[in-house]
Parts: sequence; C-alpha cells; structure tokens
Amino acid sequence: MAWEPLVFRDRHAAGQTRLDTPRRLLLFFGPMANARPDHRLSKKLYETRVPALREQLVRLQVRLKTAPSKVLLILAGEEGGGRGEVINTLSGWLDPRGVETVAFREPSDEERERPPMWRFWRCLPGHGRLGIFAGSWYTELLRAQAGEGRPPAPVPRHLEHIRHFEKLLSDDGTLIIKIWLHLSKTDQKRRLAELAANPDTAWRVTDEARRHHRLHDRLARAAARLRESTDRPGARWTVIDAADPRARNLAVAKLVVSKLDAHLKRIERAKPKPPHPVAPKSLKPAGLARLLALPLDQKLSSADYEAKREKWLGRLNRATRAAQAAHRSVVFVFEGWDAAGKGGAIRRLTSAIDAQDYRVIPVAKPTDEEKAHHYLWRFWRHVPRAGLVTIYDRSWYGRVLVERLEGFCTEAEWRRAYGEMNDFEQQLAEHGTIVIKFWMHVSRDEQLKRFREREDTVYKRHKINAEDWRNRRKWHAYEIAVGDMLALTDTPAAPWHLIPADDKRHARLQILKTAAKSIEDALVL
Amino acid sequence: MAWEPLVFRDRHAAGQTRLDTPRRLLLFFGPMANARPDHRLSKKLYETRVPALREQLVRLQVRLKTAPSKVLLILAGEEGGGRGEVINTLSGWLDPRGVETVAFREPSDEERERPPMWRFWRCLPGHGRLGIFAGSWYTELLRAQAGEGRPPAPVPRHLEHIRHFEKLLSDDGTLIIKIWLHLSKTDQKRRLAELAANPDTAWRVTDEARRHHRLHDRLARAAARLRESTDRPGARWTVIDAADPRARNLAVAKLVVSKLDAHLKRIERAKPKPPHPVAPKSLKPAGLARLLALPLDQKLSSADYEAKREKWLGRLNRATRAAQAAHRSVVFVFEGWDAAGKGGAIRRLTSAIDAQDYRVIPVAKPTDEEKAHHYLWRFWRHVPRAGLVTIYDRSWYGRVLVERLEGFCTEAEWRRAYGEMNDFEQQLAEHGTIVIKFWMHVSRDEQLKRFREREDTVYKRHKINAEDWRNRRKWHAYEIAVGDMLALTDTPAAPWHLIPADDKRHARLQILKTAAKSIEDALVL
Repeated sequence: MAWEPLVFRDRHAAGQTRLDTPRRLLLFFGPMANARPDHRLSKKLYETRVPALREQLVRLQVRLKTAPSKVLLILAGEEGGGRGEVINTLSGWLDPRGVETVAFREPSDEERERPPMWRFWRCLPGHGRLGIFAGSWYTELLRAQAGEGRPPAPVPRHLEHIRHFEKLLSDDGTLIIKIWLHLSKTDQKRRLAELAANPDTAWRVTDEARRHHRLHDRLARAAARLRESTDRPGARWTVIDAADPRARNLAVAKLVVSKLDAHLKRIERAKPKPPHPVAPKSLKPAGLARLLALPLDQKLSSADYEAKREKWLGRLNRATRAAQAAHRSVVFVFEGWDAAGKGGAIRRLTSAIDAQDYRVIPVAKPTDEEKAHHYLWRFWRHVPRAGLVTIYDRSWYGRVLVERLEGFCTEAEWRRAYGEMNDFEQQLAEHGTIVIKFWMHVSRDEQLKRFREREDTVYKRHKINAEDWRNRRKWHAYEIAVGDMLALTDTPAAPWHLIPADDKRHARLQILKTAAKSIEDALVL
Repeated sequence: MAWEPLVFRDRHAAGQTRLDTPRRLLLFFGPMANARPDHRLSKKLYETRVPALREQLVRLQVRLKTAPSKVLLILAGEEGGGRGEVINTLSGWLDPRGVETVAFREPSDEERERPPMWRFWRCLPGHGRLGIFAGSWYTELLRAQAGEGRPPAPVPRHLEHIRHFEKLLSDDGTLIIKIWLHLSKTDQKRRLAELAANPDTAWRVTDEARRHHRLHDRLARAAARLRESTDRPGARWTVIDAADPRARNLAVAKLVVSKLDAHLKRIERAKPKPPHPVAPKSLKPAGLARLLALPLDQKLSSADYEAKREKWLGRLNRATRAAQAAHRSVVFVFEGWDAAGKGGAIRRLTSAIDAQDYRVIPVAKPTDEEKAHHYLWRFWRHVPRAGLVTIYDRSWYGRVLVERLEGFCTEAEWRRAYGEMNDFEQQLAEHGTIVIKFWMHVSRDEQLKRFREREDTVYKRHKINAEDWRNRRKWHAYEIAVGDMLALTDTPAAPWHLIPADDKRHARLQILKTAAKSIEDALVL
C-alpha cells in the first residue's frame, strides 16, 4: 500500500524523528500526526475511508447530545494549511444540527467594552454540542506575532487568561481539541501557487498570505512557543501535517473520533452522584474569625440617617457619573444571610444611580440555557458595557455557599471555584471595572425576628419559604462556608466589605458610603 | 384640600377642557392625567400617599411574577419632564429584582447590522417582569423630528413597524403602558432654570435641551402626531402633566397600578385551556391545491447529479461570497414532512458555503428562556449579522403547522401568526436580507419507506420516534395546514419554493439551484 495509516506520535518522538536541534524542537511542539508527503493519499483510498469515519462521527454526536458535556474543536495553523477546508469537510460529515462554527472577526464595540475573554464566553456552545472554532482566543495573539494588530492584553497575561479559561472549561467536563495544521515553507509555497492558479480560489491568496509566507519560519517558531505555553492537561495541542489535504482531513476526523470516544466513555463511566450535604470543615479559620468578630450592635437613629443619607447619595451619584465619564464600569455583589436586607439596601443604592445606567440581576435558579454551561457563564453574560453598573443580588458565590453545603457540586468543584472566581474578578478589574462586594451580616436572633415579621405581613409573606427555615437550621455550617469565602476571595482587585446589618439604617448608610468611596478611590477622585 | 386627586379624563374631555382649536387638540392627544399646576402637591401630602402606592406596586409585582405576561412601561415626553426622575422613583418603589430599565444609546455595530427592530426584540423582558423603557422605538423618531439624526426607516414604514410590534406583543399578553410626560413651554422654562440653578443638576441643561426648549411648540405638535398615529388598542398613550414633579410621580404610579391590576385580573379570569387538537378546515384551498399538484416523479441519476452538483455548488459559493461582499445576509428556512430529507439537503447546501459564514439553527423544543417570550423571539435572536447566513432547520412556521394542529396555541393565535410571520420576513427583506424558504415534499408512501429504513439502521434509529408516527397518522390534516401556509405566506419578499423530494438527488440539486439563483437574482448578478 502506497499510503500508511496515520500515526499519532508523542511530541518527543516527533521531535526525534523530524528535528535535530532543541530550537527546532519547539517548532513541532505538540504530538505530530504525520503523513508522508511523498506518498499522497489517493482519492480512491480516501473515499473508501470516509464513510466509516462519518458514521463514527455521527454516532458520537448522538451520544454527545445527551451528555453533560460539550466539545470545542480549535483549529489553527499556518497560512494555506486549509483550516477553512477542514471545517467545511467536517461540517459536511457531522450532523449540522449539533454543530456550531464560531468565527471571530474584528471585535464589535459591544465586545471591546468588556474584558477580552467575554467574547469567547458568549459564543461557547451548550451541553451536547460541538463548537468548531475557526478563530479563537489564539487568533489575536497569532496575528500580533505577525505584526498585525495588538494582543488584547499583555502577552504573558493573555496567556494566563487562555490557560485559565481552558482549564476551567476542561475541569467542567468540556472536551477541548486543539489542532495545529502544519505546513512547511515548501509545502506552503506549493499550496499558495495552487490556490492562485485556480480562478475560484485565487482571491484567497491575499497580500497578507504572501507576507505570512515570507515570514514562515519566524511565525512557525512563534506559534510553536505559543503552543508550548498553552499545552496543558485537558487542553493539548496536536500538530497535523497539512501537506496532503486528504490525509489531513482523515487525520483531523480520526483525532476527533478517538478523543470524543474516550471522553464520552469517561463520562459514561462516571456515574452522577446524588447530592449529599456534608458538615463542612473550615479551610481558613481566619475568615470565620473575621466574620464572628464583626460587632453587630451599631445603631443609627432615624434623624442621623436622614441627615447623612442625602450627602452620601449625592456623593455616590457624582462618583457613578464620573465613572461613566471615564468609561469605567461598576459591578456590585450583594451576598448575605437570608433577610439580611439585601433588597432594601440595593434599592437605596440604586436610588443614587440614574436608572438607565444600572441593571439588577437577581440570581435565582438557573434557566436551562444557563444549566447547559459553566456556572460562571450566567454571570459573564451580564457583565456591563463600558460605563454601566451591574448589581448582582446574590452571585457566583452561591457555588461555595449553598452548592457547597447542599452537595449540589462536588468537593473538587467548590474547592477550585475560589480560584476561578478570583480570576473572574481579576479579569473585570484589569479591564477597569470597579468590583465592590458586600457581605451583609445579621445575628441569628435578628434573622428570626425578621422571618417572623415576614410571615406576619401579608405583602412580605412571599419572601419567606420552607427553604429559608431549612437554611437557618444550618447556620453554623453556613458560617464556616462564609468564613472560607471571605478568607479565600478577599483580593485587592475585589475586596469584601462586611456590613453589620442588624440595624437596617446603619447597614444602608455604610453601603452607600463604601460604594461612593470605593468608586472615588478607584477613579482617584 | 388644596390638591385634588388626579383624574384620568378621556382624550376628548381633555381636549375640551384645555384646548380650543382642533389643531391644538392634537397636541394633547391621549388621555390627560391632570394636576392643577397652581395647586402644587405638598411634600407632606405626597409622603402620606406614597406608602400605600408602593405597597400596591410591590403586591402587583408579586402577582405578575408567576403570570404568563410582562409589562412594558414606555416613558417619553418633553425635555425637562423628568423622565429620569420618574424612572428612578419607580425603580426605588418597585422590587428591583423584577424590574429592568432599558435605555438605548447609539445603536451598536451588532445592532446596525440587523433590521431596526432587532435591538428592541433583544431587550424585551421575559414573563413575570417589568421593563421600564427610558428610550424606546420612539426615541429615534422623536430625535429625527428635532432634526437630530435620521429615523432607522422611512417614517411611515417605521410607524408601521412600531404599530405592528406593539400589537404583536399586546396580542401575546404583554401589557404596554405608554406615558408622555407633558410640560408646557412656560413650565419647561421654569424647570430648566431650576435645574441650571442647582450645581448638582446643571449638567443636565445641555445645549440640546435649550434647543428643544426653543422648538417646544413645534416638537410638541410633532410628538402629538406621533402619539396619534401610534395610539392603538392594547398600546394606548397617556399624557401626564409633569409640571408638578410630586403629582407627576403619583400619577405615573397610579396609572401603572390601575392598568396592571386590571391586566392581571383579565389574565387570572382567563383560565388556561388544555391543548385540544382539531380537524382543520382549509382557509385557502388554493394552497392545498398547489401542494397536491406538485409532481413527485422526477428522478435524477447518480451520474447526472454528480455532473451537475459541482457546477451549482460553485455558483452558490460565488453567490454567497458576493452577498457577503455586499453586506447582504441570507436566511434559509427549511420546512417539510418528517423524513423529507431536510438534514441531508442542509448538509449539501452548507458544503458550498464557508463554514465560518453560516449557522444552522435546529428548531426543537423551546428553552425556558424562549418560552418566556413571544414565539418569534427565539428566531429574531438568531437573525444574522451583515453578510452572514442563518439556516433555520424548521422555523417559525411551526406555529401554523404543529401548534395549530395539536392545539398548542389558540385559533386566534395561529390565525394572526400568518401576518406576523409575513411582517417578520418583510422586515428582514427591507434590511437587505435575502430570505429563501423551502417546503420539502414527499409522498406518504415514500415517508413510510424512510421511516422503516430509519428503524432498521442502527445509527439512524435516533431520528425516529413515536411522535413521528403520530404525526404521520395526521397526514391529511397537515396537508391542509401546509396548504394554508403556502397560500398565506408566499410573499414577494419571501417566496416559498416547493421541492419534490421523493428523489433525494433531485431535491438536493433543486435546492442548490434555487439557492444560487435566488441570491444571484437578489444581487442582480
């Protein structure tokens, strides 16, 4: 047989076979799926192999459809490597109803006004689906390396964003397949000449393509470094030789089949566990100590409150207007015990902000679209545009509070959530968003009083239910979880403000003050 | 008592009391909620009235929360009428978790690349929520009347869009409250002077505001005409005198309370009916005749198909690239009998289009976010950006097919859907989108053959279920519904193409041809 089946070698083997110097080793970083360029795969042989692969792909798609998982297939590679052809071929083989092809053009203004990763979050496929990424979080870096445009963040930081993003998705059960379609300079030359010779494809050989060809070796080295620094468990690169289009298509499809099959088997083996609440042990007792040390006996008279309120509402109003003028967004997070007065405090806070400029996001049960995504997705989707304010009434911290305590997520899940949430807030802060987090703290006795009041007041009765009483019985467990949250997510970029809230007026005024001062500080007013 | 309770008068009474000439009657078009400007509402009296109103508002919000309905509160009015203050006040009174304030700044590029109403569709609140519209579909028209910017469409057409949009929402159970905050020229002068005198508010008196003041009478007349031409059942305007801010706030809140209360009572009275399938009667027998007359015996040999396919794939590819270059989007709609071959046809079609440029939207059960909206919302949300292609695999036509026949919607609902869908497609076409609709037609015998094949083939078995067999038994009922659809929604802007599909190759080629030619025709290639 003129053509040998494709072999996936590990990266060191690939390095040893094809490359001799450590420098050039980098160039081929990633396992190499290698077709001998001197023995092209014949059309006939190709056509005998396609039907079985297609059937495998579609069968896998059927299994994927009901799995709590999704696939991201990221395609990148040298100019002329045939990324577009691979996508078209795969799209033709797969059931189009379960596939989304995602392309990125210039960021839209709605995208530029949010942290750089927002545009990727917004186009993630939901569970059961396969997203083929024609462009991706690598595109801008690769373009920048070719001297076109600037990366959305300083390169080392953007690489961190990427690694973090891929790890977070992979931890969440997403299968990430990253493919680099490799073309040597010689093959690229031939390929561009072929494209130019055909009137139907000549338009693809742009000035940019010619420029990339001249820079081939430099770009290939830069790409290899990029792959090396983003080749991580759960998000590995595979390099596929794209010199022979037919062999390349088969190699891509086979890689998808083998990775997806293994992934689905892993998922199918792992039986879903029913939630089982556990009595928590404190991870960082310092947080709990901070919580318990908070004095709850401050009071503010009605006269004092009214005298001071106007002043702080005014300051807050001026501060938010100044933030808007500077295109700085503000994110408020309200967490606290049931009946701690979050709703009332939010109402006072918003009375200082132009209603056209803020949005309150009440966080209740996720919708089914939200459930088909990473738990942070539904918070990312409400990240404000430049100059606007989002107020989260409860937030992503549910992951390490109720979900931790009720066993709605595994221990591994809530444990890694602290870091994920820190990173999320860090990304907001780096983009210039001012992040202000409140924990509203009441004593257990005060909560009881307010629960009873709610039950006794007709129009407040809807605010209390059996779950509130259940949560109340777990007060001490919650204290531990809150303490850990305070200790592990109190960062300079997004500090926690503990608000004693047994006295509503005191709490409300302190929130107004903290909000105004935090914004003023961030703007250096 | 120095102040009399607000009275809502009907528009003719309002006209008779306050205005004397027919010309000026227009100025106050809309019922007038009138506070005597010479008897200002005292702060004390205001504060005694607010608590009860707030309680009513919050109670109504609680009832709204679980109702299959939403509220749009649209605020417009003369400069200085205090739209922002009203919104802030109302937002403070309402439970912020059930309220969204929607503002419109300059359209973003993502918005400009779609039909003008897309940006309004995308920010509609879901069921159970109240949206306060600081800006709205009136803003651009009003600005254009003041000589600022251009309306998004020719004025008479944009007015039609607006009336249609509001009717469609109102028919769907949405409560629309439109308020015009009126300020006479004298009151406006005083108000602007007050704002200018206070350092905290002086920034609001912009050059634009001064200009609007100079043009007060002209703008007021234009606004009155605008109100008149958009004052329709289910979407009435109410004019509220904004001279006295406190009286104005109460009037707005009282209006919301009375309208929302009446609306919720209407909904609560109307008991939801369980679906009851009915045997349909043809509305337009010509459509059915057209369907039945379609010859199904054309065949295409494998050799012929392969010979012609490449040519048409090439033409389609060139046509879609030309469309993209012209920033024209394409929308494909695929409807047809179960097993008519929609999936296979879509696959062939997409093989001609760059995978980065199209998106296939499989239409299955709506998600819960989609269920909280008008049935067209989930299709509007996928309308492509300029130059891109959306392929709907099944579509909005489900409303007049399965929903009609299974009794999932009422007769009134599916009957008005024909017009709603025509208008939707008309809006796409006016924006330059090329709309191509296919009905894939197979004989009942051919369907049976394919159903059996699916059951016999392991990897096709997932494609068939009991519902398919149930639908099959209703073949004749479906024929009638399809016929009506063809007759009532075959428009020049979005014609139906009937595709005989007993022979798959013939069907696929005809779809490729029709797609290519339709795009070429639209581009006058």
